[in-house]
Amino acid sequence: MTEHARPRRVAVVMAGGSGERFWPLSRWRRPKQLLRLTQEKQTMLEEAVWRVAPLIPPQDVYVVTGEHLVTPIREAGVGVPAENVIAEPCKRNTAGCLAYATAHILAKEGASRTMAVLTADHVIGDPEAFRKTIRTAMEAAESENALATIGIVPTRPETGYGYIQVNAQHEPLPDYSHDVPVYAVEAFHEKPERGQAEAFVRSGCYFWNGGMFFWRISLFLEALATTAPNIAQAVHAMVAAMRARDEGQVRRVFEKLEDISIDYALMERAPNVIVARADFAWDDVGAWSALDRTRGHDASGNVVVGAPVVIDCKDSIIYNDVGADMAVSVVGMENVIVIAARDAVLVIPKDRAQDVRRAVAELKQRKARQV
Amino acid sequence: MTEHARPRRVAVVMAGGSGERFWPLSRWRRPKQLLRLTQEKQTMLEEAVWRVAPLIPPQDVYVVTGEHLVTPIREAGVGVPAENVIAEPCKRNTAGCLAYATAHILAKEGASRTMAVLTADHVIGDPEAFRKTIRTAMEAAESENALATIGIVPTRPETGYGYIQVNAQHEPLPDYSHDVPVYAVEAFHEKPERGQAEAFVRSGCYFWNGGMFFWRISLFLEALATTAPNIAQAVHAMVAAMRARDEGQVRRVFEKLEDISIDYALMERAPNVIVARADFAWDDVGAWSALDRTRGHDASGNVVVGAPVVIDCKDSIIYNDVGADMAVSVVGMENVIVIAARDAVLVIPKDRAQDVRRAVAELKQRKARQV
Repeated sequence: MTEHARPRRVAVVMAGGSGERFWPLSRWRRPKQLLRLTQEKQTMLEEAVWRVAPLIPPQDVYVVTGEHLVTPIREAGVGVPAENVIAEPCKRNTAGCLAYATAHILAKEGASRTMAVLTADHVIGDPEAFRKTIRTAMEAAESENALATIGIVPTRPETGYGYIQVNAQHEPLPDYSHDVPVYAVEAFHEKPERGQAEAFVRSGCYFWNGGMFFWRISLFLEALATTAPNIAQAVHAMVAAMRARDEGQVRRVFEKLEDISIDYALMERAPNVIVARADFAWDDVGAWSALDRTRGHDASGNVVVGAPVVIDCKDSIIYNDVGADMAVSVVGMENVIVIAARDAVLVIPKDRAQDVRRAVAELKQRKARQV
Repeated sequence: MTEHARPRRVAVVMAGGSGERFWPLSRWRRPKQLLRLTQEKQTMLEEAVWRVAPLIPPQDVYVVTGEHLVTPIREAGVGVPAENVIAEPCKRNTAGCLAYATAHILAKEGASRTMAVLTADHVIGDPEAFRKTIRTAMEAAESENALATIGIVPTRPETGYGYIQVNAQHEPLPDYSHDVPVYAVEAFHEKPERGQAEAFVRSGCYFWNGGMFFWRISLFLEALATTAPNIAQAVHAMVAAMRARDEGQVRRVFEKLEDISIDYALMERAPNVIVARADFAWDDVGAWSALDRTRGHDASGNVVVGAPVVIDCKDSIIYNDVGADMAVSVVGMENVIVIAARDAVLVIPKDRAQDVRRAVAELKQRKARQV
């Protein structure tokens, strides 16, 4: 009977990436989560769905994305039912995304669900450890009626991630799993400076914020009513409009939402926030240079994908997405990124990988069709 | 009547390049001379034919090339009659090429011709000055009954070219043109070491060997009978076989020829060799890096062709041969060569431009179709 007492669980996978940082492979209609960046068989979104499937079956997984991505995602066959791929009317950050997804689920089901908020574009090294961690996070969220998140044990003083601080005594809550301690959250920290990041990692009281969340929908609405009442009201207004099949009204309510993150709208302000320790390899794969952390290297430190000709190169990332139809030859280069698509090529130093956005901006201005 | 006394002139354009150094634009069936490397309108071979047209009309120009290039050259419409595009049975260096061309012309016409041997893959800055120089060289070859060549006034101590030494007194022969002095040649020198090249340029008695030659066919055969009797005999044997339309015999004779240059087989050994001073911009466009000398630069020292996106680059050569169908974006690179074709991409440092051959060799080994 305990099984029946457990609330039914649904997952919301946030999949609204803009597709700029992995240009020329990523495009407006094919962002990072639809690429096979980290392995050859599945897109990152497909991986995200199947990774959680032993805990939450695909028919209970919702993929929230932009309108222009609904068809590409449905066509990519990521495993969820077509009607579970839902489009936000416009972009309103993660708070807007989750308000919209929650309204959608409430209009269809009820508040007695546990919702797992997952990401579609992160690399997770050990799916079994991942599932153990999020199972613990969900169980803790349900038992404690808390807002839960997972905190990735940091392996370097990364300045590109947010951090989650736990109590200094490092005292876990009463265990939910032998392997996965759960802590009360002390504070959330935005991306730190280098020195601060080093102190965070040294202290042992800080985790990386992986952007995944777990809560009963009833608690989410209750907490949001305190921390961001406008958003909570918008959820209820959207539920009413969805039930009335008034899409125009849904859009009008949604468009008025502030553009803020769920961290800021809810997690940083709510009282009852807990974190499950996530001790597995994790990477947000933020730019081409991340392939250095997620892919294997040849003897000269190069990441080589798609059989380009690579002669006398060192510490480079050379990616041919086309195969034998494109002869990509790179000779004598160091610390460079070379990416070849069928209709586009990128050459950029590894330490400037973020600047691919400048090339994409220029191509947009030219109205090039390769963005 | 002087006009009638002048022998009829024919030109032989050597166009048998292997198409490796300008990969990925150059290919086995599209070597350098069929590219529009130096300007947008004409291939280098077309340029070579039209540059000499005011002196030797295209119907008297023969293009000698490899068998695999006859059709591509005819289709490229370089301006000469289709039957004037002739194929050597195999590769036997410039001595073989000229033996074959001479036999072809002798079989059709006679020995009372002046032959101009021209190159198809050099950049010539001033066509008018070029014509003045070769007109002088031809007139001198005819009047003196000498083997004439042109010597380009060196502008830098280039170690990649051969040099032609004239008499130390620098005393020109009695003038054939007010502007173009002609000298007796003292010696030919192979590609020198750096120090030697510097001494050559300082002395003022050395020219670059541009690989162009001018002689009466009768003298060519006579001189060759002394310096390389096997080759002279082969010419006569091929003429006989050609007249008998015995192509098998032509091939058998040709295949037995040594693989040596005309410089070595004839020019360095013959007694009566003269050189006309060529004082115009000239470049053998030996590798992609040569575009730095033959094309304009942007404000950051980049040669940019085909409208790629170029952001924060310096002193680089960025060439998109495809146009809007290929979005080539290069960000933050220095001293690099990036070349994009429809089905191939090359990235290589400028100072390693010659090593493109290693990429081509690897692609050949893989049996890639892009070579």
